[in-house]
Amino acid sequence: MHEGKRTEISTLGEFGLIKHLTRDIQLQNPETKYGVGDDAAVMDFAGKQVLVTTDLLMEGVHFDLVYTPLRHLGYKSAMVNFSDIYAMNGTPKQITVSLAISKRFCVEDLEDFYAGVKLACQLHHVDIVGGDTTSSVTGMTISITCIGVADKDKVVYRNGAHETDLICVSGDLGAAYMGLQLLEREKAVFQGEKEVQPDFAGKEYLLERILKPEARRDIIERLAEAGIKPTAMMDISDGLSSELMHICSQSHAGCRVYEERIPIDYQTAVMAEELNMNLSTCALNGGEDYELLFTVPLTAHETVSQIKDVKIIGHITKPELGCALITRDGNELELKAQGWNPLKG
Amino acid sequence: MHEGKRTEISTLGEFGLIKHLTRDIQLQNPETKYGVGDDAAVMDFAGKQVLVTTDLLMEGVHFDLVYTPLRHLGYKSAMVNFSDIYAMNGTPKQITVSLAISKRFCVEDLEDFYAGVKLACQLHHVDIVGGDTTSSVTGMTISITCIGVADKDKVVYRNGAHETDLICVSGDLGAAYMGLQLLEREKAVFQGEKEVQPDFAGKEYLLERILKPEARRDIIERLAEAGIKPTAMMDISDGLSSELMHICSQSHAGCRVYEERIPIDYQTAVMAEELNMNLSTCALNGGEDYELLFTVPLTAHETVSQIKDVKIIGHITKPELGCALITRDGNELELKAQGWNPLKG
Repeated sequence: MHEGKRTEISTLGEFGLIKHLTRDIQLQNPETKYGVGDDAAVMDFAGKQVLVTTDLLMEGVHFDLVYTPLRHLGYKSAMVNFSDIYAMNGTPKQITVSLAISKRFCVEDLEDFYAGVKLACQLHHVDIVGGDTTSSVTGMTISITCIGVADKDKVVYRNGAHETDLICVSGDLGAAYMGLQLLEREKAVFQGEKEVQPDFAGKEYLLERILKPEARRDIIERLAEAGIKPTAMMDISDGLSSELMHICSQSHAGCRVYEERIPIDYQTAVMAEELNMNLSTCALNGGEDYELLFTVPLTAHETVSQIKDVKIIGHITKPELGCALITRDGNELELKAQGWNPLKG
Repeated sequence: MHEGKRTEISTLGEFGLIKHLTRDIQLQNPETKYGVGDDAAVMDFAGKQVLVTTDLLMEGVHFDLVYTPLRHLGYKSAMVNFSDIYAMNGTPKQITVSLAISKRFCVEDLEDFYAGVKLACQLHHVDIVGGDTTSSVTGMTISITCIGVADKDKVVYRNGAHETDLICVSGDLGAAYMGLQLLEREKAVFQGEKEVQPDFAGKEYLLERILKPEARRDIIERLAEAGIKPTAMMDISDGLSSELMHICSQSHAGCRVYEERIPIDYQTAVMAEELNMNLSTCALNGGEDYELLFTVPLTAHETVSQIKDVKIIGHITKPELGCALITRDGNELELKAQGWNPLKG
């Protein structure tokens, strides 16, 4: 396409590419409070903070219809956008849903997809305000935009973490990644590539985590009830490691996270064992957890410890100390963002 | 995919499909003023009307990279979204840009695309507040969401046209469609399919209209200066016929449009002649004009007649009279929405 110099996109990676393309953007409108670089953009309209986040999901890259029911896909597509709004400490209010589909889909398929979107919207009191369908020459493409609101001064960015702040995470990590491994294994069985018997018994939680994630509104509500406003927050989509590094780099800070404190479900551990994978690596780099990662002032230690389903996993340090994991045997391992990078594929 | 009943999407068409999928949506939030069914959704945050519109553009369906420079594609992708906001009588303020690309694209390609987006944003004072790139297994996919604002009571919907209102249109129609024919012809030449010499001389306007459309902020401003608030408005993307029928059906009205009054540029006429196509059909059904179609009260006749680049082409009638074109020889032809339907392809 381009004549002359050709720089391969893989040399920059997803985050690098966006940084490169948006590096010289000067915001022109006073209503624009925050642009590229967080879970959502922030606008101020008449003193109300309006949040906007958008996701583009491609078949064959972000989802595999061989093992993803369309109803679940609709549910998840909406849910992950709500998660981005909660990660800003906001409340999702509206979404628009655009689909591109090829002729292999029928009206009933789209009804299934919409049923999932509608269920997610019902649970989170979100209105579907825009819809668009168009054709695609190949796979299915989903584009969802979610609009949310927050009271002034309630929005939490990625860049507010301070030295000594406690690092907290909701739920447990690595289960969605294990669920994905399980589904990929079953797909191989289905396609006759391997001689493995399908066996989901006792692994229902893993499947639920990958196919039907839940956005953590409950955590946002509990934090508000406890009177805690996180200093930084984001949702875990690419993996704990990658997200920690985002928070630290944007907050100009370092961090120490304790391996033994990372919350992991029993089924995740069993599955990692079964697949002979390193459990901590799965929890750190698996991604698609859609749990909340946030930091709170050290003074909130006691209060935050009592919040259901929240665990303190480490603390923020001076930037020169870098980002590291303290392993069970007391070693310090530098964190690396091995998060899921769809541009490397 | 779906087991059991299978209804082909072509039986519903694009508009029918969206209507079908969104028919039972109940709006839950008081902030949501208007959902599916207009150029943009409307929210009310603290008394300020916030408009949101989104577009999903697929390579091979909405654009052809053989003859579309990426810079122009970026410009147009942004511009058509601004056009949707102007069509609500609003002002575009922010956009998010998501791209899915395959490995054949390099960083310089995306720089070109972004250069076009940035230029469009600069001209319309719009901030890029979100960006996302991901990979695609096949072609390029563009998803743009635009956020705009309007003062309370300034938003213009499609459903407000009344009997005797004048129907107005900005600019001229059919030129983008002729530009597309021209490019398709040159593509055939390029691919050696036909023995036709490329000849763009004297046809620059047609190419500009298809490759680099301009959103009509100027018309919105002139209407405001003249103290006119249209009763209904939308932008012409699918074609005049199709859009007139949207306004009439949503306003429960009919219309009469005069063939001789439809504004057509000289180059459009020459090209239609050259291709042996019916000129009025091109102007009525060509689409991609991105001009504004609006209705004003009969009392605004004198004022609106004096607005530069606006033409009165007909009037709104009782619904039982249907939608019709009065031809040059005085015949009445029922309007049909032969607008561009990407789902039929």
